[in-house]
Amino acid sequence: MTGIDDFFSIIPAGGVGSRLWPLSRADAPKFLHDLTGSGKTLLRATYDRLVPLAGPGRTMVVTGRAHRAAVEAQIPELDDASIVLEADPRDSTVAIALAAAILRRREPDVIVGSFAADHVIDDERSFRRAVGEAVEAARAGYIATIGITPTEPAIGFGYIRAGDSAGVAGAPSAAIVREFVEKPSAQVARQYVADGDYLWNAGMFIARADVLLEALATEEPELAAQIEELAAVWDEPARRGPAVDRLWPLLKKIAIDYAVAEPAAASGRMVVVPGDFDWDDVGDFSAVAKLHNGAHRGRLAILGSQGTVIADSASGIVISQSKRIVSVVGIQNVVVVDTPDALLVTTTDNAQRVKQVVDAVRRSGNTDAL
Amino acid sequence: MTGIDDFFSIIPAGGVGSRLWPLSRADAPKFLHDLTGSGKTLLRATYDRLVPLAGPGRTMVVTGRAHRAAVEAQIPELDDASIVLEADPRDSTVAIALAAAILRRREPDVIVGSFAADHVIDDERSFRRAVGEAVEAARAGYIATIGITPTEPAIGFGYIRAGDSAGVAGAPSAAIVREFVEKPSAQVARQYVADGDYLWNAGMFIARADVLLEALATEEPELAAQIEELAAVWDEPARRGPAVDRLWPLLKKIAIDYAVAEPAAASGRMVVVPGDFDWDDVGDFSAVAKLHNGAHRGRLAILGSQGTVIADSASGIVISQSKRIVSVVGIQNVVVVDTPDALLVTTTDNAQRVKQVVDAVRRSGNTDAL
Repeated sequence: MTGIDDFFSIIPAGGVGSRLWPLSRADAPKFLHDLTGSGKTLLRATYDRLVPLAGPGRTMVVTGRAHRAAVEAQIPELDDASIVLEADPRDSTVAIALAAAILRRREPDVIVGSFAADHVIDDERSFRRAVGEAVEAARAGYIATIGITPTEPAIGFGYIRAGDSAGVAGAPSAAIVREFVEKPSAQVARQYVADGDYLWNAGMFIARADVLLEALATEEPELAAQIEELAAVWDEPARRGPAVDRLWPLLKKIAIDYAVAEPAAASGRMVVVPGDFDWDDVGDFSAVAKLHNGAHRGRLAILGSQGTVIADSASGIVISQSKRIVSVVGIQNVVVVDTPDALLVTTTDNAQRVKQVVDAVRRSGNTDAL
Repeated sequence: MTGIDDFFSIIPAGGVGSRLWPLSRADAPKFLHDLTGSGKTLLRATYDRLVPLAGPGRTMVVTGRAHRAAVEAQIPELDDASIVLEADPRDSTVAIALAAAILRRREPDVIVGSFAADHVIDDERSFRRAVGEAVEAARAGYIATIGITPTEPAIGFGYIRAGDSAGVAGAPSAAIVREFVEKPSAQVARQYVADGDYLWNAGMFIARADVLLEALATEEPELAAQIEELAAVWDEPARRGPAVDRLWPLLKKIAIDYAVAEPAAASGRMVVVPGDFDWDDVGDFSAVAKLHNGAHRGRLAILGSQGTVIADSASGIVISQSKRIVSVVGIQNVVVVDTPDALLVTTTDNAQRVKQVVDAVRRSGNTDAL
């Protein structure tokens, strides 16, 4: 298990996942939960998936200072050089570009691949094949992404429209990206799936670090310069602190899709490698119920309960962080999330509305529970 | 407020109400809860309803030893002579007949009326009128009951078939009971309601104590003798304890319907006074949701919560004994009962199935929660 030459993986571990409240919350975000019943947190599963690709010790995690201990507990293998702590969240461009800039200082020819900490991937062989092609495309100077072959006309994901083959040796399925498109309506999503050229945007980016940073410098020169300035002192602890204190508050919050991927696609520098594996961003409890692979009581999935779950003519999922008895009678596709300070009861059909509950909790002033 | 001459009311306060689990349970039975949002427990509301009929200090509560403190907290007016503590539950005949026997020793001509501690009655004036007629019928030597005029073909109650007028002065609507019938099927219930002679059996019994005890002695002579033996020493503390220790384990468990009411009806000694008031035995959470008269969040009723309830497109009822946030999203007619050691999630349509959950909890060995 030596990994792909020059390849280093980056895991931006941020994002609360507010549609997964009250399970996922500021002090216990989505990536720190086992949402599939696999026995591993999403972060640990992501790390384990990347080690065969990048090789041992060649994965960097970018996370908030508040999550340092939890991340280190999940991945004891991480040394100090492999964890980038953010003073506060600055969106995905800062997370990924800062890691890339730090890695490039250490290894000028490094190819970086960024993979979210909180997605689920089922067929790891197929995932590795796709990343392998993406790395070859990156080596050829492209910024590569992996687009998931849709299995249904999902409206919860953005799509990538693939064009002609990029003609890269070693990356036979890499195609030039024609455009990125936002989450579509149901009707448009059906057209996309029928069309066959559209893939789900899984937020994976693979590129030479210098290519990525150059693309950023073209689009967001000030942000790129600030990131370079931070990276220049990152490995010198005495200088890092003052630089972070000075620069961090200035860093622009912008998604890497806007700062890098879409401009790169517009100028023909972006390729997509189709991924034929099962992938999910586990965006809400409907996804959790669907992906759950662990204990069941009849048709009711059970995640994390240390108590007793009693189901009578019920289906759906119970997620329990208590030792209480949880009994569900005669409700189909129910979602029950039982935490020490907050309870959520809904159905998988209503899973997207959970965000509105979070907004209501915020308005109610119970911010401790968020 | 002097009450009806010679009348003394009895409140048998027993019965866990297992369809109301996990709210109602062995150590906090149904009668100790405010199930309507009125601010009063069912027991207190029952007591307050009876005081104008029997007069102050003329109500006796029969309950389990374990509930003594809770009952006294609810009704500080009760003196020691007005509370009968059961060593263990022996069904309604023992509860009511023992109280009647004790009261007859103190007051030979007493007319007793027994009313469950955990029913809800809305129109108290109409209730008092019905009890007034029943007392007149009792004075004439009948055992009287009050039958509720059905408002729907309910299948959860037993029915009383009324016959000809009893012709009792002062009780113009009292009719001879033709028969008591068990909980009917939906089809039979519709026939009963269409027929017009059928009334709901609300378990109210009004009779001269001596008539009641004589009827019991005819049907269950051994039990009647044991009860008389207990009553004979009840007001002598030194003799009461040994008598209870010796006799209580021998007392037959039998419902008063079988031991007194049905045999009395068969021999023409039972009358029924129709009651045109709203009555409910609050048998399950569907009834609780229907009767709830307190706080709401949109169409979601809230009972007892000290926390925050958040509802989004939800209807039904949340009963909370915690300070947790309870959020319900997109479920209609939901029932959420949140207690420290057990959570129930169901719908009003499934309220009758809660008993099966209790059975499942018992099988699971979590008997502390029952």
